[in-house]
Amino acid sequence: MATIDLNCDMGESFGAYTIGDDRALMDIVTTANIACGFHAGDPSVMRDTILLAKARGVAVGAHPSFMDLYGFGRRRISGERPEDIEAQLIYQISAIQGMASALGWPVTHVKTHGSLGNMAAEDAALAKVCVDAIRAVDSRLVFITLPFSETMKAAEAAGLQVACEVYADRRYTDNGMLAPRQMEGAVIHDPRESVDQVLSMLCDKTMPTIGGKRLPVDPATVCIHGDTPGAATTARALRTQLTNAGIAIAPFHTPERLHEEKSL
Amino acid sequence: MATIDLNCDMGESFGAYTIGDDRALMDIVTTANIACGFHAGDPSVMRDTILLAKARGVAVGAHPSFMDLYGFGRRRISGERPEDIEAQLIYQISAIQGMASALGWPVTHVKTHGSLGNMAAEDAALAKVCVDAIRAVDSRLVFITLPFSETMKAAEAAGLQVACEVYADRRYTDNGMLAPRQMEGAVIHDPRESVDQVLSMLCDKTMPTIGGKRLPVDPATVCIHGDTPGAATTARALRTQLTNAGIAIAPFHTPERLHEEKSL
Amino acid sequence: MATIDLNCDMGESFGAYTIGDDRALMDIVTTANIACGFHAGDPSVMRDTILLAKARGVAVGAHPSFMDLYGFGRRRISGERPEDIEAQLIYQISAIQGMASALGWPVTHVKTHGSLGNMAAEDAALAKVCVDAIRAVDSRLVFITLPFSETMKAAEAAGLQVACEVYADRRYTDNGMLAPRQMEGAVIHDPRESVDQVLSMLCDKTMPTIGGKRLPVDPATVCIHGDTPGAATTARALRTQLTNAGIAIAPFHTPERLHEEKSL
Amino acid sequence: MATIDLNCDMGESFGAYTIGDDRALMDIVTTANIACGFHAGDPSVMRDTILLAKARGVAVGAHPSFMDLYGFGRRRISGERPEDIEAQLIYQISAIQGMASALGWPVTHVKTHGSLGNMAAEDAALAKVCVDAIRAVDSRLVFITLPFSETMKAAEAAGLQVACEVYADRRYTDNGMLAPRQMEGAVIHDPRESVDQVLSMLCDKTMPTIGGKRLPVDPATVCIHGDTPGAATTARALRTQLTNAGIAIAPFHTPERLHEEKSL
Repeated sequence: MATIDLNCDMGESFGAYTIGDDRALMDIVTTANIACGFHAGDPSVMRDTILLAKARGVAVGAHPSFMDLYGFGRRRISGERPEDIEAQLIYQISAIQGMASALGWPVTHVKTHGSLGNMAAEDAALAKVCVDAIRAVDSRLVFITLPFSETMKAAEAAGLQVACEVYADRRYTDNGMLAPRQMEGAVIHDPRESVDQVLSMLCDKTMPTIGGKRLPVDPATVCIHGDTPGAATTARALRTQLTNAGIAIAPFHTPERLHEEKSL
Repeated sequence: MATIDLNCDMGESFGAYTIGDDRALMDIVTTANIACGFHAGDPSVMRDTILLAKARGVAVGAHPSFMDLYGFGRRRISGERPEDIEAQLIYQISAIQGMASALGWPVTHVKTHGSLGNMAAEDAALAKVCVDAIRAVDSRLVFITLPFSETMKAAEAAGLQVACEVYADRRYTDNGMLAPRQMEGAVIHDPRESVDQVLSMLCDKTMPTIGGKRLPVDPATVCIHGDTPGAATTARALRTQLTNAGIAIAPFHTPERLHEEKSL
Repeated sequence: MATIDLNCDMGESFGAYTIGDDRALMDIVTTANIACGFHAGDPSVMRDTILLAKARGVAVGAHPSFMDLYGFGRRRISGERPEDIEAQLIYQISAIQGMASALGWPVTHVKTHGSLGNMAAEDAALAKVCVDAIRAVDSRLVFITLPFSETMKAAEAAGLQVACEVYADRRYTDNGMLAPRQMEGAVIHDPRESVDQVLSMLCDKTMPTIGGKRLPVDPATVCIHGDTPGAATTARALRTQLTNAGIAIAPFHTPERLHEEKSL
Repeated sequence: MATIDLNCDMGESFGAYTIGDDRALMDIVTTANIACGFHAGDPSVMRDTILLAKARGVAVGAHPSFMDLYGFGRRRISGERPEDIEAQLIYQISAIQGMASALGWPVTHVKTHGSLGNMAAEDAALAKVCVDAIRAVDSRLVFITLPFSETMKAAEAAGLQVACEVYADRRYTDNGMLAPRQMEGAVIHDPRESVDQVLSMLCDKTMPTIGGKRLPVDPATVCIHGDTPGAATTARALRTQLTNAGIAIAPFHTPERLHEEKSL
């Protein structure tokens, strides 16, 4: 039976501010990418989100970003030295790794956030910075990356384990990139088509593109949006339909699995 | 031969801003308390400071604070829930612990900064929060605390190892507290008297007080000020005079010692 | 016919974070206290909130705070020099005054936020700092203050115009202070009692206290809570009941009135 | 007699952090561009810097930036909506304008900082945002801009008064742009050549370029660097040599002149 993970960004509240319906989504997804305090999140939010995940067996990971609370990590920031970005990533991953371990539910992976993620996917040098930072902290951590991205290439070149992430509701260009939102047909609105796209990628290991190509792909996880209205409803429907299609929904990695592998 | 450690706050620069002469002080002290990004410091500054310390065999530790860059951690902040302060401490200690380990020079200890440190020294509940946070991250970390403080009591009650910190240039009240700066005679200006006070505490295990008492004390480390003009000169003189008096200057703990103890 | 103003804190969203239902509340209240970017708010939120108010004829004012986004201005912060707090207030009031004037809807008043407001109400020196800051920017600005507070006394002593603020849903101690929330009976849950308390204060100019006293009071505005669930519903009910009781609901000051007074 | 202004960025300290030798430079320059709290500066620093300037008759202006304390406004930030950048500029200019007026020494001008300034100089849309923001606050404010820049064009198109800014120690390309620092010969190290370049631009109204052209220019102010070691010494030498060459050194605008013009 084919298995897929559902991952979602969480823990993005800050101080008095709440964003996202983490409680509802935590019942649906199998992996949570938790903000580390740079674009969102704070220590208390991190702790609460990790405990919420632990209670449901949801795997947790670091979701580091540029230092940009005001812009929620969505502003494209350039002009920083690579070694400074690397230090920022090491800091964030370490902060959540220590906290998660203290809570008895260690982090399993890293997924870069927002503009940092987008820029690293396109820029080999920045991708290498991300990979180096992850390896510096813990080379057992899995890196969630987009197929055909510079990040995936850099991770594979460095021997870092990757989890290939696909989208249910976005179409792909002939290069295997996400079609830009403003492009006609870029967003899949029909839930049935969304499921079909995931099934195609998961069972046939092929990614259908806007130009009619079929690219090879080996997805480990599907990105679930958490910050749109009705996010939980959409996510629950996708999970149900995948389950009905005979797909098992499970984390690509859990702390327990990490420990087993370590002891092998 | 009696041995003492000299500790100093470091890594308090931020972005374009430089504070303190870390490079000069790193040649004098044996332990560096490194800011964790909440009252001062940033990931790049943390990395540079850890590497500076490693190159000289200076032990490094976490110097966590209230979240207060503007106030440099010196503003007294109240009204936070204990569990939120604990989460902030776990976050900061974890961040530097992960980074220091990645750089091959693990942290050996924790010293709380500024108002957080002052408030915890007087408040048993806040002291317990600090101790709980340290133990949650790594119970082998040593906690630098003032003698007779609530922090020291809480650490000892919890079985956490403490390093008793004394001052060379400050006098003590009959309760063993630091005499407030505004009090007549609170600050020792004569370098010879400073050395004598340290020698008395170190060799005779007694703390002379303003009221003429002699309290029992077992100092492990002397606090070196880093942010006053001429700080390095004063510190170097103290180090020389202690050495001349036959005292060995060495870290109370180094990463190597941590590892030895772990393997015992 | 008696007239009263309804004021509410608004514009407390920040970046990607939304807080409060400003759009709904703006149809109910007559005065908006707008966050100035220190505890909440950002320049875009300020602009949008001012324009929302202008479109409905709602008066706008500065709602300055301690510099504390993480704590939403609710943490009690001490250890700052009075002149630094004064500078922070001048900065915040000036920022919103300039922006509001640029948008053609000048600020009419100031109300201090959260812990700063609470601390100033009890501390004559801090109260004077607030008054001095307002006068430094524009002595025509009205200061919303609690009755019997140090802030009101300081404002009156300095000749600054005050708007006395009362609560519909909170009882008062025999000193005219708000009864602490944790005190039995401190919060009025019955809407009818809320209205009666306002009517008593407004029409009889007396404040009923928990101990059965009746203190003299001359209210200009009622504080409307904006950040509780159902806030808009509760506020609308209060407005309707006051209107039904023959009370006119109007700003204590509008930009237009400010201009008229100036030209007299 | 020809007259020129010397302008310098100031007030860039923050909290416990000091940057630049404002006290020394304030005796040399005639115009101070004061940080507004977004890339540097805080309300107390702003106040102190304005008072320092007032005591010496140095004109003060707003030096607004991207919201980027960590990057000191030097990181290039993109992906923000123009109206949000405009709001940020209005906020900053208003904050310092209110404070400066409260201190009796109103701002005379605006100069954009760091990456915002560089990006606006090249981008007509962003240049217009800056011009619109200044006009929204006070259309009498002078905009310091580089010759041949989009900012200068946008200001002139909108009828905003500009002060053309030139450099003593940087050469220009044949398009009138500053030659990039990494280009051979971009920086003028010989003080005599620096003075000659200024005199050429000031007296002959021509800008010598690297390619040997002479472009028309009408400079109002020379940019003085404040954050390099020896900044004050270099600046003092330039001032002396200009004075010796018969040039008068004076602000292009002072609060007094602003008032005179207003009353004409």
